[in-house]
Amino acid sequence: MEETAAHNKKLRAGIIGLGCRGVSMTGLLAERDDLDITAVCDVYDDRISMMQEKLAADGRARPVGFTDYNELISSPLTDVIFVFAAWEAHVPAVVAAMRAGKPVAFEVGGAYSLDDCRLLVSVWEETHTPAMMLENCMYGIREMTVTEMARDGIFGDIMHVDGGYMHDLRSEIANGAKNRHYRLRNYLSRNCENYPTHELGPICRLLGINEDNRFLTLSSFSTAARGLNDYAARTPGIDPALADAHFAQGDVVTTIITTAKGQTVKITLDTTLARPYSRGLTVHGTRGFFCEDNLSVYTDDTNSEADHFRWRNFWGNFDGWIEKYQPKLWRDYTAAGIKKGHGGMDFLVLDAFITSVKEDLPMPIDIYDAAVLMAVSPLSALSVSKGGAPVAFPDLLNGRDPASIPRCEGIYSLHRTAKKTNP
Amino acid sequence: MEETAAHNKKLRAGIIGLGCRGVSMTGLLAERDDLDITAVCDVYDDRISMMQEKLAADGRARPVGFTDYNELISSPLTDVIFVFAAWEAHVPAVVAAMRAGKPVAFEVGGAYSLDDCRLLVSVWEETHTPAMMLENCMYGIREMTVTEMARDGIFGDIMHVDGGYMHDLRSEIANGAKNRHYRLRNYLSRNCENYPTHELGPICRLLGINEDNRFLTLSSFSTAARGLNDYAARTPGIDPALADAHFAQGDVVTTIITTAKGQTVKITLDTTLARPYSRGLTVHGTRGFFCEDNLSVYTDDTNSEADHFRWRNFWGNFDGWIEKYQPKLWRDYTAAGIKKGHGGMDFLVLDAFITSVKEDLPMPIDIYDAAVLMAVSPLSALSVSKGGAPVAFPDLLNGRDPASIPRCEGIYSLHRTAKKTNP
Repeated sequence: MEETAAHNKKLRAGIIGLGCRGVSMTGLLAERDDLDITAVCDVYDDRISMMQEKLAADGRARPVGFTDYNELISSPLTDVIFVFAAWEAHVPAVVAAMRAGKPVAFEVGGAYSLDDCRLLVSVWEETHTPAMMLENCMYGIREMTVTEMARDGIFGDIMHVDGGYMHDLRSEIANGAKNRHYRLRNYLSRNCENYPTHELGPICRLLGINEDNRFLTLSSFSTAARGLNDYAARTPGIDPALADAHFAQGDVVTTIITTAKGQTVKITLDTTLARPYSRGLTVHGTRGFFCEDNLSVYTDDTNSEADHFRWRNFWGNFDGWIEKYQPKLWRDYTAAGIKKGHGGMDFLVLDAFITSVKEDLPMPIDIYDAAVLMAVSPLSALSVSKGGAPVAFPDLLNGRDPASIPRCEGIYSLHRTAKKTNP
Repeated sequence: MEETAAHNKKLRAGIIGLGCRGVSMTGLLAERDDLDITAVCDVYDDRISMMQEKLAADGRARPVGFTDYNELISSPLTDVIFVFAAWEAHVPAVVAAMRAGKPVAFEVGGAYSLDDCRLLVSVWEETHTPAMMLENCMYGIREMTVTEMARDGIFGDIMHVDGGYMHDLRSEIANGAKNRHYRLRNYLSRNCENYPTHELGPICRLLGINEDNRFLTLSSFSTAARGLNDYAARTPGIDPALADAHFAQGDVVTTIITTAKGQTVKITLDTTLARPYSRGLTVHGTRGFFCEDNLSVYTDDTNSEADHFRWRNFWGNFDGWIEKYQPKLWRDYTAAGIKKGHGGMDFLVLDAFITSVKEDLPMPIDIYDAAVLMAVSPLSALSVSKGGAPVAFPDLLNGRDPASIPRCEGIYSLHRTAKKTNP
C-alpha cells in the first residue's frame, strides 16, 4: 500500500548546527533506521568535515556539507530539517524550513523579539508545515509523572509552581571564544531569562497553557553580574580578560508569570554561580505539594499533620510516586531498555517528532507552544530594563480558540485535551 | 556595688497578649529567676484568669490583670513590657511602652502602614527606650550558621537569596472564630506578605541590611485564594460558611526585593495549602550555595564538577557545616542542655532581650531592623494591588548613617559591624 510505502520510506534529514549539541543529537539521529542524514550545515568548515568523516567512519553515507542553511533547506537532498544551531539562528531557519514546506524540529532557546514569535505563528498558519520545538524536558520522567499526578487531582487546584534552569555553565561560557559557543556573546550583550523552556515547557502542560489557561503578565528581576568575572579571575586556562569584562547578563534572573486562573509561576535562571544542577520544579496545590529539590510529595491524603514538621523523613518519597504515576510512554521505554541522551529525554523528543512526521500527526509541541515559551526572553528583557515592571503577555494564539488547534494523540501526546494514553 | 545591685534586681514584667503564643512565651519567662511577671493583659477576661491561676499554681506570685494594655504599661507594677498580642496591637503597644520609658520586646508580624514603621523609628529616636522585635529565627542555628559561613567567605559574593514562611496554617485560620485568632480576620480582609520576618530577619543579617546595604524596591505577586475554601468544604468541624467565604489573602504571595548591592531576595508566604513546613532559605553566591530544603551546601572548594549533577548524593551535608560553623552562642547553649521553645530559639531571643536590658546594651534586633522588616507588609499590599508593580523601599533610617547606630556586642550580637563572638 502507498501508506505503508510512505511509512517505510526513509526520511532524508538536513542538520543545521554542528556544535556540541548538534553533534550529540546528530549521533542519536544517525542510529535510526528510518532516517538518512543527507546534508549537514555549520558556519565552520571544520565542523562540517568532522561530521562528514564521523558519519562515514560509522558506515553511513557521507552527507553533503553546507555553510549556508538556506541552501541546505532548499536543497532537493533534504525532506526534514533539524535546527541545532545557535539561538540566534533558530527563528530564521525554522521560518525558512516552514516556507520550503519541510517539516522542521528545532532546539530550545528564547526568542530575541516578540515579532519573531509572531512570525513563527503566522508562517505556520500560512504553510501548516510541521514544526516542533525539541523541548526534551517535556518528556522527562519527573515532569511527565508530576503532570499525570496533577491530572489525577493529587495536588487539588494548583496555585503556584516554581521551576528553573539552574546549571553552572561558567566553564562553557568562559571558554566560549575557544569553543565558538554562542552563550558567551549572549552573556556579554543581553540580560534576560534567556533559557526558559526546560522548566516552563513542562509547567505549561501542568497548568494547561494554550489549553484552558494562558499567561497574563511577566515580571523579571536581575541581579548584578559577578559570577563569571570571579570565575575567570581565579580559574586557570580561562581568558584573563574575562575577569574584567562587562557581562550584561545578571547572575540570577527571577521571573514571575501570572496566569488567567489566578496562579503564579516563578522561574529562575541561575547559570553563572557555583551550585548543583536543578530544574527546581515545585507544585503548590490546595491538596498536595511536590518539591524536586528533595524529590518529595506531601498530600492531605497521604500525610498526617505530624509530617508537617518532619519533611526530612520523606525526602525522596517521589520514587514511589514515579512507580505509580509514570506515563505509559516511560514504562514502555524503560522496558525496552533504551535510554539515550540526558537520561532518555533526547531520544524521546526526537522520536516524537519523527513519529509525528511519519504518521502525519499534529506536533505534540506545536508552534503556539513554542511561541509562548520563546516569548519569555524578550518579555523578560523588557521587564528587567524597566526595573521589574510587569509586562503584558501577548496572546500568541492571535485570538484563536485553543480547542481548534489540532492535537497530537497517542503515545507522544502532551496536551491535556488529547486522548489520555495512561491506562 | 550599685551596678551589681541593679543586675540582681528582678525585672517586673508586664505581658500583653495571652493567646497561644503569649501563653507559650509567658511560660518561658515564668521559668526565669531574674524576672517576675507582675501584670498580664488580654482583651478576654478568661485568658487573664487562666494565666493568673496557672502562674499561682506554679508557685509564682499572682499577676494583676488588665484588659487595657495602656493601663498595664503605665502601671507602677511593671518595668519591662512584652507584647505577644495580635498583629494589629504591636505598633500602638510598643509606641506606648517606649513613651512610658519601659523597655519593650514584641512579637513578630508585619505593619499595617508605612506610617506605623516611621512612627516606631521616630518614637525610639525621641525616647531611646530599648525596644526589640522578638524575631526568634534570627537566633536559629541554621540561620546563624549560614550567616557565619557567609561572613567567612564560603559563598563568595552573595547574589540571590530565597526564604519563606511556608507553614500550613489552614487549621489555625479556619478555627479562628472558635479560638479568637487574629489570622482569620486578616486573611478575610487583607492580601499581602503578612508575615515576612522569620525568613527576612536572618536574610537581613546575611546581606548586611542596615549595615552597608539596603533594600531598594519590592514587588509582590499573589495567587487567588482557594486553599481555605477547599479545606473548609471537606474538613469536619470547620465552620461550613468558610467554604464559600471570600478570603482576600491569596494562597501564595511571592515577593521580590532588590538591594543596593545588586542582589535579589525572593520570599514566599505559603500558609493555606497542603505542604510541609519550611523557611526555604537558599543562598546563591559566586563560590557557594546553600539549600535548606535538602540541607545541602555546595562550594567550588569542597565539590568537584562531577557533583554538579549528583545533588542527591550530598543532601543533608549541612550537618557537617553546622558542626564547624555554628556560633559560640549555640555551642554554649547546646552544652548547657537547655533547648526551650521552637528548638531553643524562643529561649534565646527572650534571653537576648532580657540580658541586653539588664546589661544596658543596645538591642541586638533594633527598631530600625524591625521597621524595615515590618514595612514589607504594607509595601507588598501596595504592590499586589498594582498587579506586581515595583514599589520603592523607603529609607527607614531617615538618612541616618548605619555606622552611627549603637550596636549590641557580645554573645547575642547579630550585626556584622559588632565585634565577632565566634572564636
